Amino acid sequence: MALDEVETPALIIDLDAMERNLRMMAEAVQGTQVKLRPHAKMHKSPDLARLQLAQGAVGVCCQKVSEAEAMVRGGVPDVLVSNEIVGDTKLARLAALAREARVAVCADDPFQVERYSAAAQAFGVTLPVLVEVDVGAHRCGVAPGPPVADLAKRIERAPGLRFAGLQAYQGSAQHKRQPAERREAIQSAVAQIRESVQALGKAGLACDWITGAGTGTFRHEIASGLYTELQVGSYLFMDADYARNVGEDGKPVHEFEHALFVLATVISRPVPERAVVDAGLKAYTTESGLPVVHGLPGVECVRVSDEHGVLQFSDPSHPLKVGERVMLIPGHCDPTVNLHDWYVGVRKRRVEALWPITARGAVS
Amino acid sequence: MALDEVETPALIIDLDAMERNLRMMAEAVQGTQVKLRPHAKMHKSPDLARLQLAQGAVGVCCQKVSEAEAMVRGGVPDVLVSNEIVGDTKLARLAALAREARVAVCADDPFQVERYSAAAQAFGVTLPVLVEVDVGAHRCGVAPGPPVADLAKRIERAPGLRFAGLQAYQGSAQHKRQPAERREAIQSAVAQIRESVQALGKAGLACDWITGAGTGTFRHEIASGLYTELQVGSYLFMDADYARNVGEDGKPVHEFEHALFVLATVISRPVPERAVVDAGLKAYTTESGLPVVHGLPGVECVRVSDEHGVLQFSDPSHPLKVGERVMLIPGHCDPTVNLHDWYVGVRKRRVEALWPITARGAVS
Repeated sequence: MALDEVETPALIIDLDAMERNLRMMAEAVQGTQVKLRPHAKMHKSPDLARLQLAQGAVGVCCQKVSEAEAMVRGGVPDVLVSNEIVGDTKLARLAALAREARVAVCADDPFQVERYSAAAQAFGVTLPVLVEVDVGAHRCGVAPGPPVADLAKRIERAPGLRFAGLQAYQGSAQHKRQPAERREAIQSAVAQIRESVQALGKAGLACDWITGAGTGTFRHEIASGLYTELQVGSYLFMDADYARNVGEDGKPVHEFEHALFVLATVISRPVPERAVVDAGLKAYTTESGLPVVHGLPGVECVRVSDEHGVLQFSDPSHPLKVGERVMLIPGHCDPTVNLHDWYVGVRKRRVEALWPITARGAVS
Repeated sequence: MALDEVETPALIIDLDAMERNLRMMAEAVQGTQVKLRPHAKMHKSPDLARLQLAQGAVGVCCQKVSEAEAMVRGGVPDVLVSNEIVGDTKLARLAALAREARVAVCADDPFQVERYSAAAQAFGVTLPVLVEVDVGAHRCGVAPGPPVADLAKRIERAPGLRFAGLQAYQGSAQHKRQPAERREAIQSAVAQIRESVQALGKAGLACDWITGAGTGTFRHEIASGLYTELQVGSYLFMDADYARNVGEDGKPVHEFEHALFVLATVISRPVPERAVVDAGLKAYTTESGLPVVHGLPGVECVRVSDEHGVLQFSDPSHPLKVGERVMLIPGHCDPTVNLHDWYVGVRKRRVEALWPITARGAVS
């Protein structure tokens, strides 16, 4: 099937670009102390996770039990739920899953530790639990240093649990635009991890699993000598927002290519300055900015509504007509992927793969 | 099942509130010239559409052929696709659907008219086509007046088509905050419709179907004496953004109640000033503002990420604990609904209905 025959809106993967992104990240960790554990919350597809495993990833991260179930049942043998899970039904599912695969989870509160322990005992498993440390993102996570050791000791004492390491993702560093800002944020995170590891050492607890990093900062986590894993997700697809980061060379970052697009059709050209496409807020999300029109200089997406995207032309004589198609680069890939049921994998304008977005809507 | 047992995040309907909203809108049109044709792009559920039909609605609107298919197959006999449809495969589906139900569609370009005609002829149906007029929203639609008559004549001449009326939705008026702004926008729209109807009259074309209006302005469309139908959608659920409109009495509009919520669980309370819930950008959308925490004064959602919502407390001694649940009022109901697979209908904290969001993801 030709790309031109695909119904719009559709979520398109440029397979050549994605494969180059896959290899680029695999090469980045070669010969370093870090392993790749890509974040599956981004792509929600065991099919794509298996491509990452084939390039050397040790497993994946998930944020939700339902995502972890989709990954394990899709053939991923090692899943870190890089999040706190609350709710005994969810924990029963998590503990059941730990009978089938290596499954770890995070904690930042004694309440979670107590309920994790109860679930692990009920299912006869030992759950590896990481302490989540707040290294600057100020979302979840205990304060660095002694509080980390306190929670780790509680985990280690809890029947059915094992203290496994540190979850230390500096999420707020990923989209800082200037390279120096990102570097400083990760330097600060590293200092806080070091302090936490020392506190653990004083408490007699070893820590050989320190996991974090994102597409915006991963080279700093590699350089830290402390992190043992990267949780990068967006590198696979690159969205418009990540592409607004400035790299060390002063140019927009360009080590990864845009590989994810929303294919849309022009349904209206009511006036020369404006065209309207059939893809809006139900085909991409805009909390990280409007989509960027790919490969059409002078054509800008300026406004969106539920089912429409409004394109504006710097030159009103632009020949884009009703019935023609455009490729939009989404502002933020994770929640955009979560809107769609299928990936359409395309190479040289031919459809080569159709992958279900297995964990779409898996939010529990 | 009790509400307390529902897994989070979940999309909850307060059935009592929704039923009051249903009745309130049915009463608003009683004794007037307008009929109700609620917009199903909002709820995407034939189950809810049937509740609207039972309260006197003449049919529903949809934006997409796939939505229209879901509605007709779910028992809705009359669907207006209040949008331009481009793509011959979609038009074949639309024309096929027109054999099963009353199906109308909109046009603002001769290209669409030509393709609609080809599809209607191929399926042996007569498609009613409305001319979409741009009455101020500056999205799709031809300019008011003579251009409307020109396109209407083209429709009327096209084999398999029938000129049916005007699509005249003033979308940009719906969220203007001050009542005078909304009133003026609709007065202007009405003047432009009048001009268009006169142009149609000169061309010998009658126009007895004029459809538009939204939850923010519908009383003005009723008062116009021109509109024959209301396409209101959000009144059924009311989102946080509509509730920011100021009413004629100078207070936030209060004729409809919040009936749609995202139920979320507190998964972390890392510091006294902050809690984190398990619902983020994959459980609600934020392009019209962050969700509002329902019924908990002094607790505000201040930041969201893909799977997390960050709550801030004006009083850090607030007792909200890990494991407790909150109800979030989404900023914008339409794209929020489109994230979920099920509605959980609740009355007096008991689950009474589980309705599939049949047309979730139906974007083509």
